Amino acid sequence: MRSVPRQVRVVEVGPRDGLQNEPAVLPLDQKVEFVRRLAACGLPQIEAGAFVREDRVPQMAGTDALFRRLAAAIGGGRGQAADAGAPVLSALVPNRHGMERALAAGAGEVAVFTAASDAFARHNINMTVVESLVRFRDVLAMAAEHGLRVRAYVSTAWWCPYTGRVAPDAVRRVAAALTEMGCYEIALSDTTGAATPAEVADLVERVAGDISVSRVAVHLHDTRGTALANVLAALEAGVATVDAAAGGLGGCPYAPGASGNLATEDLLYMLHGMGVKTGVDLDALAAASCWLAGAIGRTLPGRYLSAGPVVPAEAGQSTDAKV
Amino acid sequence: MRSVPRQVRVVEVGPRDGLQNEPAVLPLDQKVEFVRRLAACGLPQIEAGAFVREDRVPQMAGTDALFRRLAAAIGGGRGQAADAGAPVLSALVPNRHGMERALAAGAGEVAVFTAASDAFARHNINMTVVESLVRFRDVLAMAAEHGLRVRAYVSTAWWCPYTGRVAPDAVRRVAAALTEMGCYEIALSDTTGAATPAEVADLVERVAGDISVSRVAVHLHDTRGTALANVLAALEAGVATVDAAAGGLGGCPYAPGASGNLATEDLLYMLHGMGVKTGVDLDALAAASCWLAGAIGRTLPGRYLSAGPVVPAEAGQSTDAKV
Repeated sequence: MRSVPRQVRVVEVGPRDGLQNEPAVLPLDQKVEFVRRLAACGLPQIEAGAFVREDRVPQMAGTDALFRRLAAAIGGGRGQAADAGAPVLSALVPNRHGMERALAAGAGEVAVFTAASDAFARHNINMTVVESLVRFRDVLAMAAEHGLRVRAYVSTAWWCPYTGRVAPDAVRRVAAALTEMGCYEIALSDTTGAATPAEVADLVERVAGDISVSRVAVHLHDTRGTALANVLAALEAGVATVDAAAGGLGGCPYAPGASGNLATEDLLYMLHGMGVKTGVDLDALAAASCWLAGAIGRTLPGRYLSAGPVVPAEAGQSTDAKV
Repeated sequence: MRSVPRQVRVVEVGPRDGLQNEPAVLPLDQKVEFVRRLAACGLPQIEAGAFVREDRVPQMAGTDALFRRLAAAIGGGRGQAADAGAPVLSALVPNRHGMERALAAGAGEVAVFTAASDAFARHNINMTVVESLVRFRDVLAMAAEHGLRVRAYVSTAWWCPYTGRVAPDAVRRVAAALTEMGCYEIALSDTTGAATPAEVADLVERVAGDISVSRVAVHLHDTRGTALANVLAALEAGVATVDAAAGGLGGCPYAPGASGNLATEDLLYMLHGMGVKTGVDLDALAAASCWLAGAIGRTLPGRYLSAGPVVPAEAGQSTDAKV
């Protein structure tokens, strides 16, 4: 193994990428409670909602009220990021109108969303990748004016569900363009959970060569069980920001075969086991996921959530074999 | 990422470690059919059964007849290993009596089973680790006399479910003793799926320093989602033999909280994605697991098995973003 960063920033995307892709629509009170519980775990950043059309994405309805209530309940909104212990509360914004809503609701940070494959972008956001970048100009100008940082997701960074393998150079160009436009971080996203570790290491190294690895995050789905191995490959390439969703919530309705996000508990279990600091309380996070599973009425797919901690029944009495 | 071996030998343990730990007891005809289907996938080695007490482990009843029927159906038994395309069919043997049965039934290879923690050994095989090694002397002498190779499992190589962390030096001593006694390969086993990648890399490097990495295999459970990341760490440390169970069958009834083995499909998906050759047909293996899931009447936990292959709907028409 190559060495890995000593500290990793975990971006919790359960309330947005997770809930957005669950069939159940969580009532506002329960969303507030979910994010409040997540915030109490020590997460540095939570993507809490999306300022998208409520008629098209009912799961994200009420994001405006959600941010206002969260600002009062836990801080983390605009101008509040420096509060002791409060996570940054970020929101997905697709366009100028979404950005206006995010500003009015006091979001602490925003994220834009595009892809490296035109076929996926057309299916998902009904425009080409270049058209999406043009649309982001307004969003980035408004964010700069109000001192808000902008994160960018590049979906289908390795594989497109419609056309297969995506060329690393296409991803590099999109990542470089977004960075040049002012995005502070590029989340390379394995939308359908199809990537494997060598591909992840290769792409991270290429993209980092253009924009610096400190600006690269990975957003991985565990569809085929490779998410944590891909995280390991990314860490070895120097990545120190990893997205995950509590309990492995969500998936992607536009991507055939896609299942849940990497479960935050599984990520924390691996990182903490490797001595990598996150500042997040794993047990508290698992409790928040259990609460959420009850609220949406389904068992979540995260492995750690089913297995629980390693609790030795006779702990403290070493019985290492005397050979 | 560090470089990894170009070829990996996958040892399929579903019919033994998998079925032994399923509540359902598979009838003999279905066991024969399961192993026959697995053998047709190109697996180099299949652990097909265990010569243990049938009153204690009813899931392994009929292993004698199973091996006789498999020798006729697919080869792979003693003296048949050189048959073109036939996998080595191995069996677990706990003692002299088991070894006699394995010889009579024509097993192609045998495996012995101990631990690095006395607490686990006492709970699981009712003796200390040293006592187990003493008992293996007869087994190894008989194997040598008949020209059979002997593999050894070292359970709780990282964590013991009763006493917690196991000292790497204890594992080294057990691995060295087993090698000195004549075992050709040591399968370091994460019985409860508690290990994380840095621990795996560290232990493999220490054990390999004593006995050579070509003699080290890893046997990992996916209890907390870390199995494939642990495989990656092992590959980077030079390991080229990995155990897995079709569909993620089984667990370990003696280890609280333990769930299924690493699913062979997930392992193959990752390895093939990295360009590592295995000689195994992933789609055929997934079909064998689906058949077995029907036979035992439960959904298997492997991720790939649920998600399926990456099948682009518009494959061949690259639509990489024109940025």
